[in-house]
Amino acid sequence: MGNSIAVKVDARAALAPKQALEAFLYEPGGLGDHDIEVAITHCGICHSDIHLIDDDWGISKYPLVPGHEIIGTVAARGPKVRALGLGERVGIGWQRSSCLACEFCRRGDENFCSRQEATCVGHFGGFARSIRADSRFAFPIPKKLPSESAAPLLCGGITVFSPLIHFGVGRQTRAGVIGLGGLGHLAVQFAAKLGAEVTVFSSSRDKEASARDLGAKRFSVGAQGKPGSLDFILSTVSADLDWSPFMELLGPDGKLCFVGVAPKPIQIPVFSLIGGRKSVCGSPIGGRKDIRRMLDFAAKGGIRAQTEALPLARVNEAVEKVRRNQARYRMVLVNE
Amino acid sequence: MGNSIAVKVDARAALAPKQALEAFLYEPGGLGDHDIEVAITHCGICHSDIHLIDDDWGISKYPLVPGHEIIGTVAARGPKVRALGLGERVGIGWQRSSCLACEFCRRGDENFCSRQEATCVGHFGGFARSIRADSRFAFPIPKKLPSESAAPLLCGGITVFSPLIHFGVGRQTRAGVIGLGGLGHLAVQFAAKLGAEVTVFSSSRDKEASARDLGAKRFSVGAQGKPGSLDFILSTVSADLDWSPFMELLGPDGKLCFVGVAPKPIQIPVFSLIGGRKSVCGSPIGGRKDIRRMLDFAAKGGIRAQTEALPLARVNEAVEKVRRNQARYRMVLVNE
Repeated sequence: MGNSIAVKVDARAALAPKQALEAFLYEPGGLGDHDIEVAITHCGICHSDIHLIDDDWGISKYPLVPGHEIIGTVAARGPKVRALGLGERVGIGWQRSSCLACEFCRRGDENFCSRQEATCVGHFGGFARSIRADSRFAFPIPKKLPSESAAPLLCGGITVFSPLIHFGVGRQTRAGVIGLGGLGHLAVQFAAKLGAEVTVFSSSRDKEASARDLGAKRFSVGAQGKPGSLDFILSTVSADLDWSPFMELLGPDGKLCFVGVAPKPIQIPVFSLIGGRKSVCGSPIGGRKDIRRMLDFAAKGGIRAQTEALPLARVNEAVEKVRRNQARYRMVLVNE
Repeated sequence: MGNSIAVKVDARAALAPKQALEAFLYEPGGLGDHDIEVAITHCGICHSDIHLIDDDWGISKYPLVPGHEIIGTVAARGPKVRALGLGERVGIGWQRSSCLACEFCRRGDENFCSRQEATCVGHFGGFARSIRADSRFAFPIPKKLPSESAAPLLCGGITVFSPLIHFGVGRQTRAGVIGLGGLGHLAVQFAAKLGAEVTVFSSSRDKEASARDLGAKRFSVGAQGKPGSLDFILSTVSADLDWSPFMELLGPDGKLCFVGVAPKPIQIPVFSLIGGRKSVCGSPIGGRKDIRRMLDFAAKGGIRAQTEALPLARVNEAVEKVRRNQARYRMVLVNE
């Protein structure tokens, strides 16, 4: 078959909450009918990896191998894998599998499937030399996309692209992006390439030039702006802000959409929703069709994550940069 | 011209916040080009009239003549009024006017116009024998609708109909209505006639039979139900509830929509929005095209407000019933 199966997987794991990652070998188990083994070349570090390491969400199991922005090549294939060839470059994101049978899976919203599994929750993720995964949740990477800058698209990219598409952001849209980080710097690029007029909201002037380079037309420190001047605001930060001023920036039918997880419940006065028929909403990753669409769109539009690469052996250094919001804008682990 | 103009308008007014209403005569001023004088036969009492009397929203001016669910006949017409004839039966709701020129007015969303005026905020409303108003915000009442049960449609009806239409409630929708009162009992009828499967959420079993008569398929005391079993929930209550359990009842893309004004800010954990791409939203009244559509739909569907009538002279008694949530379901003032 040409399969070259890893006997042991060389990974990096947290053995307990908030711990530094350590070298960790595990046996990958059998290669299922639809599974592939991927020789990992790149893996982005997402803020949710930090939340998992720290067990912030109470769902982590240890040893925990983080990593769900994976790019690599197919090193082995289960007997029923048809769509992907040996050596083909693929990406794997947050979602590892779904039932492929329920109403949500049938319409391409596999990310709403109640039986979905995550790549690094209850499974060993991508901070490793290889991973075994369901081939049906592995996505061919368009040729134009370099692996290092494409890896963050698998989670960060789809997380921001999916709400932009779902909520109709396009040429008519005056869009805001709160926070210019791993998610935000991708959101600005996608929104601008979709034709929207983009305003970036940041906590300081530091990132203004960068925001404009990425396609932003306006830059605001805090929630400054003309009332009613925006149609859609995407919050990519995981901080507790005062959301009411952002609601005032929205015009009729405006939406404030969360992809970043603010720790405390959002507080919104009802009148700020009623008068202009406004919405506060959230959005998770996208389904498989949206991930493919996002990758194509990124390839055609020249959308690139801005990355800093470190080898897997220096994972703890990379994790610390993410933890301290010092990444500009995404750390990517690279296997030579 | 056949106009029979009132020299003084016989109304009932609050002279200060939270006061009983008193007889109040005022001079109506000139009849503008597009104005009509309406001889009021019926006026519903909406909870927002109570909020205005009490100055709960800080926007009231005294003497304050409440009333914005008005039905009557055209008694006089300004020189440019073409669309309405003398003696014609018309309705007037919350909104009195708009600029008729801005982007929102041009697309039929006059209720988003920044220059809109309200019937009984800064103007004298419908707790009176007559009113002068802009004919372009007066709506012919379909023959099939009796005046007493149609009056509450002008505000309560459009307030619930507008979000049902805008957010696509129809045959595929599993809809919830929180609260069975003036708004709720109309929402149940509209949603059921639109084809939705309706669940009513109430604070006790008292109104179950009534809810089912109005078209509800299910009745729940509190936020009981299967997680993910609803697509759209309309909150018609002006109480502070724990909204999180209602969010859990919503499936993917589900929406919790407020038309009732909860006094305290809504608190929503971000995760409850993100996972299922859910929304919390609000909705005001509708534009002119939606009000006409609502009246037609009510006429064809046999939708009727359930009312208790009292003469204008007993207005304080009627107001007290509304204040105590004892109306079943809408008090209507009637001029003999």
